[in-house]
Formats: sequence, C-alpha cells, structure tokens
Amino acid sequence: MAETPGGTDETNRLEALNDGVFAIAITLLALDLRVPQLAGTAPAPQLLGALAQQWPSYLAYVLSFVTILVMWLNHHALFRLIRRTDHALTLLNGLLLLVVTAIPFGTKLLAEYLLEDQRRAAQGVYATLQLLLALSFNAMLWYAVRHGGLFGSAVDRDTVRAMVRQYRFGPLLCAVAVGLAFISAEASLGLCIVLSIFFALPSAQARQLFGRARAGGGGRLN
Amino acid sequence: MAETPGGTDETNRLEALNDGVFAIAITLLALDLRVPQLAGTAPAPQLLGALAQQWPSYLAYVLSFVTILVMWLNHHALFRLIRRTDHALTLLNGLLLLVVTAIPFGTKLLAEYLLEDQRRAAQGVYATLQLLLALSFNAMLWYAVRHGGLFGSAVDRDTVRAMVRQYRFGPLLCAVAVGLAFISAEASLGLCIVLSIFFALPSAQARQLFGRARAGGGGRLN
Amino acid sequence: MAETPGGTDETNRLEALNDGVFAIAITLLALDLRVPQLAGTAPAPQLLGALAQQWPSYLAYVLSFVTILVMWLNHHALFRLIRRTDHALTLLNGLLLLVVTAIPFGTKLLAEYLLEDQRRAAQGVYATLQLLLALSFNAMLWYAVRHGGLFGSAVDRDTVRAMVRQYRFGPLLCAVAVGLAFISAEASLGLCIVLSIFFALPSAQARQLFGRARAGGGGRLN
Amino acid sequence: MAETPGGTDETNRLEALNDGVFAIAITLLALDLRVPQLAGTAPAPQLLGALAQQWPSYLAYVLSFVTILVMWLNHHALFRLIRRTDHALTLLNGLLLLVVTAIPFGTKLLAEYLLEDQRRAAQGVYATLQLLLALSFNAMLWYAVRHGGLFGSAVDRDTVRAMVRQYRFGPLLCAVAVGLAFISAEASLGLCIVLSIFFALPSAQARQLFGRARAGGGGRLN
Repeated sequence: MAETPGGTDETNRLEALNDGVFAIAITLLALDLRVPQLAGTAPAPQLLGALAQQWPSYLAYVLSFVTILVMWLNHHALFRLIRRTDHALTLLNGLLLLVVTAIPFGTKLLAEYLLEDQRRAAQGVYATLQLLLALSFNAMLWYAVRHGGLFGSAVDRDTVRAMVRQYRFGPLLCAVAVGLAFISAEASLGLCIVLSIFFALPSAQARQLFGRARAGGGGRLN
Repeated sequence: MAETPGGTDETNRLEALNDGVFAIAITLLALDLRVPQLAGTAPAPQLLGALAQQWPSYLAYVLSFVTILVMWLNHHALFRLIRRTDHALTLLNGLLLLVVTAIPFGTKLLAEYLLEDQRRAAQGVYATLQLLLALSFNAMLWYAVRHGGLFGSAVDRDTVRAMVRQYRFGPLLCAVAVGLAFISAEASLGLCIVLSIFFALPSAQARQLFGRARAGGGGRLN
Repeated sequence: MAETPGGTDETNRLEALNDGVFAIAITLLALDLRVPQLAGTAPAPQLLGALAQQWPSYLAYVLSFVTILVMWLNHHALFRLIRRTDHALTLLNGLLLLVVTAIPFGTKLLAEYLLEDQRRAAQGVYATLQLLLALSFNAMLWYAVRHGGLFGSAVDRDTVRAMVRQYRFGPLLCAVAVGLAFISAEASLGLCIVLSIFFALPSAQARQLFGRARAGGGGRLN
Repeated sequence: MAETPGGTDETNRLEALNDGVFAIAITLLALDLRVPQLAGTAPAPQLLGALAQQWPSYLAYVLSFVTILVMWLNHHALFRLIRRTDHALTLLNGLLLLVVTAIPFGTKLLAEYLLEDQRRAAQGVYATLQLLLALSFNAMLWYAVRHGGLFGSAVDRDTVRAMVRQYRFGPLLCAVAVGLAFISAEASLGLCIVLSIFFALPSAQARQLFGRARAGGGGRLN
C-alpha cells in the first residue's frame, strides 16, 4: 500500500472515536445556554434584556467552542502524519479525550461565576483545564516524535519539527493564565481568549504575528 | 488517484466532524420535548390535552429539524464538489457549526415564548439564527468559489454557478424574516416555514416554483 | 467501479448521518434513567427498593433500545442494496430520522405514566411513534423499489422482494397496537414487545415462527 | 479482495454505530459533573471547597471513562480480527451497547451515594454493570470463536486464543466485586479501580504483572 496522507486502517477507528467525542463535546456546550424564565406579565422587550444579561454564557460558549475546534484541528494535523498507533499512544489519546469531555463542565462553571465574587476560582479551574488540554496534546506529540516508527516513512521531518515548535509554548502560556487567575479573573480570561485566537490562525500567520510581536518587543528594548 | 465524487482523505475527517455535529444537534432538538406533569388524580384524557397544548414545542422542533437537515444536505452537496480544504475554509466551516449548535437553544426559546407576549423577541432571535446560518453557508460557498483550486479539476463550473445562484437569496429572505419579527411573530415564523419547505425541495422543482411565482408576479404587473 | 456490497461515495455520508442519529438516540434513552433521591436517614436497603420501583423506566428503555437497534439493522440491510440516492429518498430518510429522534420522548412519556391512570394515553402515543417508524421505513423501501435504478444492477430481485414481504405487516401490526391502547395499555404494550422480539430475530427464524404460528392457528380452526 | 486488517464493508457500519455509541456514552459521563450553587455572599475560596467536596463525582467519572475506553479498545481489537458479521453477533453486540449506554446511569448513582449510608447498594449496582459489560463482551468473543468463519482466513489462531485467555477472568473478577459490595463498598470499588487499570495496560505488561503477582503469591505460600 502506498503511503497516502490520511488515516490507515490502524488509525481510522481511533480517529472515528475522536471525531465523535469532539463533535459531541462541542455540541453539548450549547446545552447550557439557558432560556430565561420570565413572568407572563413581563413587558415584551424584557426577554431581549434577559438574553443580553446572559453574555457570560455566550462568551464561555464561544471560547470553549473555539478551544475544542482548534484542538480537533491540531489532532487532525497530527494524525495526518501518524500512520500507526500503539497502546501508549492510545492511552495518551484517551487522556486528551478525558480533558475534552471535561471542557463543557468548566465552561458551565465559568459562565455561572464570571460575574460573581468567586470568579477567580472559576477562571482558575477553567484555565487549568486549558493547561491540561495543552499538556495532553503535547504528551501525544512528544511520544509520537520519540517513537518515530509511528510516523509514515514518507513524513517530512521538518513538518514534524515545525509542529513541535508551534505547540511548545502552549502549556507555558496556559500555566501563566492559571497563575494570573489568582490575581485577576479578567486578565486570565483575556489571555485565554488571545491564545485561542492565536491558535485558531493558520500557523504561518500565527508565526508572523508572533515574530512581529517579538521583533516589536525587541525594537522597544533597543 | 482519479477524481471521483465524494470525499478525499483531506476532506474526510472534516466531513466526519460535521456529520457528527449535525447528527447530535438534530437529535438534541427532541430533548426539549417535555413530558407533561399531571397530578395522579387527573382524568385520563387530560394527558392527551396537555400533550396537544405543547404544539409550539412540536412546531419549533420540526422546523428546526428541517432547517438542520437541509443545511446538512447543502453542506453535503458542497463537499461533493470540494476536493481540498485550507485553513480559512476550515474556520468558515467552524463558524457554520457554531451556528448549527446554537439552533437547539433558539428552538427552545421559540417554543417557550411562542404563545407569550414576548413572542416577537423570541422569533426575532430565532430568525437571526437562521440568517446567521444562511450567511455562514454562503461565506463558505463564496470562499470556495474565489479559491477555485479547492474544487476538483473535473468539477463542472455550471454546477457551481447554479449552486451559488440557488443560495444567493437565502440571507436576504432570512433578513426579511428578522425584520418581520418586529411587526408580527406569526408572519416572520410563517416566512421561516415557507423558506424551509422551499429549500427542502429539490432545486429543480424549487427553481420551477420560484420561476412560476416570478412569472405570476410579472403577469400581475403587466 | 465494480459494484461491491456496502456504501458508495454517494450513500456514505447519508449513512454516516444516520449512524450518528441512531447512535445518539439510542444512547440518550438512558439519560432518563433517574437516580432515586432518598433522605440521608433512609435505611440502606431502601435504595434497591427505590431502584426496583423504577421498573417501568427500565422496561421502556430496553424496549425502545431494541426498537431503535432493529430499525438501524433494517436501515443497514436496505442500504447494503441501495447504490444511489436521490432527493426524495433523502427526504424520506429524513422523515425516518425525525421519528427516531422522537422515540426518546415517547419512551419518557411511557415510563412516567405506565403505572398511572393516564397509561392508555401514554401507550397510545408510544404505539403511534412505532407506527410512524414502521410507515416511514416502508415508505423508503417502497420508493426504492419503485425507482429500481437506486439499487445496484447486481442486486438480486428476490432479496428485495423478500425484504418488502418481511416489512409489509409492520405498519398493520403497529396500527393494531395503537387501537389496542384504547382498550388496554397492557395488551398494547405486550404487542409492541412481541413485535420488537419478532423483528429482532433473523428473518429466517422469524418467518419460521410466523409460519408455525399460522400453521398452529390453522390447526386450531380445523 | 485481499484480506487487510481493519473493517470490511460488512463490518464497517456496525463499527460506525459502535464508535458513535461509545463516543456519546463517554462524553455524557461528564454531563453529571455539577456546578456547585453558592450564595452570592459566599467568600471566594468557598467555590474551590465546594468543587473539592464533589470528589466522588470525579472518581466515578474517571473510573467509568476508563471502563468505557478500555471496552472500546477491546471491541476495536476484536473487530480487527472479525471479517464478517451474522445476525447473532449483531444482537450480542447490541447487548454490549445496551450495557455501555447504562454505564452513565450507574456512574451517577455511585457518585450520588458514595458518601451515604446506601453506598453498598450503589456500588453493588455499579459492579453489576461492570459484570454485565464483561459478560457481554465475552459472549461476543466466545460466539466469534465458535463460528470461526467470522474471522478472516488470514487470522492467527494464537492471537485469538491469547485474547480469549486475556478476557476469561474478567467476568469472574467482576463477580467478586459484586459480592464484595455486600461487605464493603470501599473494597468493591477498589477492586473495580484495580481491574480498570489492569485492563488499561497493554496485554503484555498486564500478563507480566499478573504473572508476577501469581509468582509472588506462590512464593508466600511456599
């Protein structure tokens, strides 16, 4: 069999399970958008007001949606290179799925407490889930790189190295977000939003942005 | 590899994620059909009466079911032509999925308030979701047309042009439905129902209906 | 392309959507198994008692599980023969999915009211959903037979005819179950259970059973 | 058609249904992680305390996650060998899915009552579900072995025999867990945790562990 990009018989069902879990987790996020309960005597425009007041739910929903979608993209990109799985990779993949299925819970928690006094605790838990997500993906990536036989023989080593480089800073930046949550829920959440936008961009543009920021920062220092 | 209609390795997993999200969203709609809670002493026929009184739930459920199914059909038709994806198309597709997962929320809102004073607000939100759905699908379609390399080389340009023409009026008509909601929830909902039937018909019959309506309108003007 | 049994590019995504909807509907059934809420001071064995008292929920759950699984098997058997889809078949398939997604609602209704005075109404609704399921599957089957081009050229006409014969009585028997519900919820539910066992058996054994029953009935008459 | 590892047309849709059910059941587990409801005036660290107090929910969630993931792995391993299905295998597979869909219910029950007086009853039900899961998987495996034609002709009989040996003790050990629940919920739950770790390990390492334990036990006896 020629090595074509895409799944092999060996990886196909693992990808099917993953696609299922990602699809369900991303769809369940919207289950927590609640319909406001108004008295029948409430004036008509009050419904729009009540809906608008739920903005923390929408924010948490969109942020988690982007997070899961980006993780699906990363997973997809990784499995376009991986041709074989072994038991350890399957377990690491299971760990990733465990974190993915916990994201809707973290989202609900954040939405519930974003405007309350406990918002730093809620955002701390949310950022921790993001950190665990980044760590478990990097664990899969690192394991696959250490066991090069999992990649097809035709895989371009540069592509793999670029991928490792791209994701390297994810866990670090998420750890910063966790730490920030102790000081300010808003700053921590803001960092999570910036990170999700950054990782949603194509890697070339993201690299450019990142490079520009570094160049800009360097400029200020000189 | 010869270019056969249907997915390529490159588009297969994107389609798998989409099929999963569409399947879950369409099935979750029915989660909001509620079992009436009657007292044990209630006479027997009262259950049927209580079920019948929930008709706004059934109406919203069937309407959203058809909406999501038709969007799946459109998506399916588009991806029979598309052979390659790029990052932007994947993000546009993610935007479409974001709207699809929000449809059950809009459905619940509409079912809850269809008989209440706030029904124009509820229908306005529902029609807005329909508008966003139409816009995000058109965005994907337009992007794919502008980047012709995403289509297979064997794709018939006329098929693509017919598709663009067919969906062109979707956003406009949905925008009218949003506007109508300010005046009458019933008229706006009626337009949404007509649109979903229209788009559920095969395009040839739909074109004929549309053509006939236009011819008829023209006849009246002359 | 040689005609092999199994999906074609044209039917694959429709089957994927179907598999998704069937899988979700069958899994959601268990969401309505409720954890009994006992006071902390309740004696230990009371939990088992409270669980046992929920038997209508388990019965409805298993019955609906078998119903959806059998319908998946039927659908699977049909699509092993069908090689092409057209718009009308897709719409008929959508109708089937609409009924499948409503089954969890009917199951919840039946479980809630099976021991109440309103049980005949609840079982009547449940049997009606079974009838609609049988009707929509037969509609797909009949449409496919009338438009023979949808089957592959290698399809054995006898196989198709046997399938039509096998499902022919489904709607009739379900209609009887609907009628029986007006008289006795237990008799109607019993018929639904017998039907689901009958259709779960392989068709050869089912035919034999059916033949034996007919022969036996004939024997009594002579 | 050459016999390659992985699904055939005949088994592909069955695997698709299974992957869907496993993916949904594993994702639904997290739906029961509840967001604590605190008064607005509660001091900030109280949220973390309330989250920590929910540890039975997290324990039950992770345990059931591993259970379902391991069963998916087993199922996947079995269907890499099976080339054909028949009606009985499909029904046995349906029985397995019925148990899988009931796992979230058992998980909820365990989480709710793990710290209450009724914990032995809750753990007894949970261990019984694990037993039914092990039994239904062994039933599939045994049936496939008895009807060797279901395996591809290229299947290595030693692989099949090793699989049968590996799973042979599952039902027995789960039955012990059910029995233990009458005496001590903690001991029974502990055994379930050990079993899930044992079956999550690759079979070679698991065999080694098992062998070592047996050798160690033997050593103590001499």
